[in-house]
Amino acid sequence: MTETRIWTAGLVVIGDEILSGRTQDKNVAQIGSWLNVQGIRLREVRVVGDVEEAIVEAVNAMRTAYDYCFTTGGIGPTHDDITVDAIAAAFGLPVVIHPEARRLLEDYYATRGGLNEGRLAMARVPEGAELIDNPVSKAPGIKIGNVYIMAGIPWVTAGMLEGLTGKLEGGRPLVSVTVGALAPESEVAAMLRDVERASDGISIGSYPFFKDGRGGSNFVVRSEDEELARSAAGLLAEKLAELGYDPVDGGM
Amino acid sequence: MTETRIWTAGLVVIGDEILSGRTQDKNVAQIGSWLNVQGIRLREVRVVGDVEEAIVEAVNAMRTAYDYCFTTGGIGPTHDDITVDAIAAAFGLPVVIHPEARRLLEDYYATRGGLNEGRLAMARVPEGAELIDNPVSKAPGIKIGNVYIMAGIPWVTAGMLEGLTGKLEGGRPLVSVTVGALAPESEVAAMLRDVERASDGISIGSYPFFKDGRGGSNFVVRSEDEELARSAAGLLAEKLAELGYDPVDGGM
Repeated sequence: MTETRIWTAGLVVIGDEILSGRTQDKNVAQIGSWLNVQGIRLREVRVVGDVEEAIVEAVNAMRTAYDYCFTTGGIGPTHDDITVDAIAAAFGLPVVIHPEARRLLEDYYATRGGLNEGRLAMARVPEGAELIDNPVSKAPGIKIGNVYIMAGIPWVTAGMLEGLTGKLEGGRPLVSVTVGALAPESEVAAMLRDVERASDGISIGSYPFFKDGRGGSNFVVRSEDEELARSAAGLLAEKLAELGYDPVDGGM
Repeated sequence: MTETRIWTAGLVVIGDEILSGRTQDKNVAQIGSWLNVQGIRLREVRVVGDVEEAIVEAVNAMRTAYDYCFTTGGIGPTHDDITVDAIAAAFGLPVVIHPEARRLLEDYYATRGGLNEGRLAMARVPEGAELIDNPVSKAPGIKIGNVYIMAGIPWVTAGMLEGLTGKLEGGRPLVSVTVGALAPESEVAAMLRDVERASDGISIGSYPFFKDGRGGSNFVVRSEDEELARSAAGLLAEKLAELGYDPVDGGM
């Protein structure tokens, strides 16, 4: 296998409501899965509140440590939506009204009460930014440098990701092959480690579950090389069978 | 209002499965809510993979920046469970077998196939650590310094939190009062900002929703002073009514 570049991303989830537990975040899982398909690994997430200093610090850390930095949350019309200002500050850029964003919002709100101060705020971008299409509710996402500023509402972000699909430079997608069994992970730990060590370029994760009162585990083999992942999963299934556990392809 | 100390916490969520999107994290919301009740604010979360260097860096950042650092994940019996080693490294401490943890696990597994290498791994702690009771599956959580090492499985963590309830030093619980209305947040943004500014010691978050094809918002007033929160929520409800929106106490 030739050495291939690994593309990486960090994600900053912005919002007091996530930290307070009021709102269950869905964007980590959504963006993590989507990035895998783009051949980009989500390496780190930071969740911060609606505090400019905290956003600046997290965005600057992520955009310099990884190829891409995504953010979610804080781009709505209200006073607690400070993401654009914070990211502009992180880049040392002024905030300007993006003319195309203004036009999009004018059109959208023409039959919905018109553009007011709060709605116009959603056309504000760091100077030099590009827009990310929002097919759901029009107010666009924003790309500045390697930072992709997305909505907080998961299905709005889903629409934005749809439009970005296939457009980011990435490597090979990470392939996962899952083998499940009614095997408590504590009974097969040594075997798992041996199977992982037997093959370069794969990793195995072990995720316990409980079903009908019995303990089992899903074993997830991950690799950029699908063939490698499948052969390690095959070896794992064999070893499980040898230990008396019926493996189930695709997990349980 | 006299100035009261604000107690803070950071959380490190550990696991490749969270970053890959395979597993939907539940611990941020669970621990964030629980901390609020203890009078402790969750200020920041970092999600990192099963990589020692990343865990060490995140734990050292959180335990020095905040009063408490919680971690979830990576304390099971398999090769990808490296949290204890990483946190011991973060403190510069050796890892030892905790005799009480060993005894707990011996008892628990006596009728479940006995203690093996993987299961014994769950008795490993940084030297000098205390145990956190796990009423669900016995393998204990671990406290070292101001770091609380919890399970990754949400209902196991729930059991551990139960035992810690009321035992951590904290300040006044954060009170939230929610007012909902079928008001698009973009129509009331200016009013919200004014209500927030009218009262020191409160903050207002605005969280849009869609219901029966109409847009609405929940407005959450947060304060350490319950009376202050209720009076600001009352003012907010009045202002919503003036703008022609029926407010609903407790949100929608």
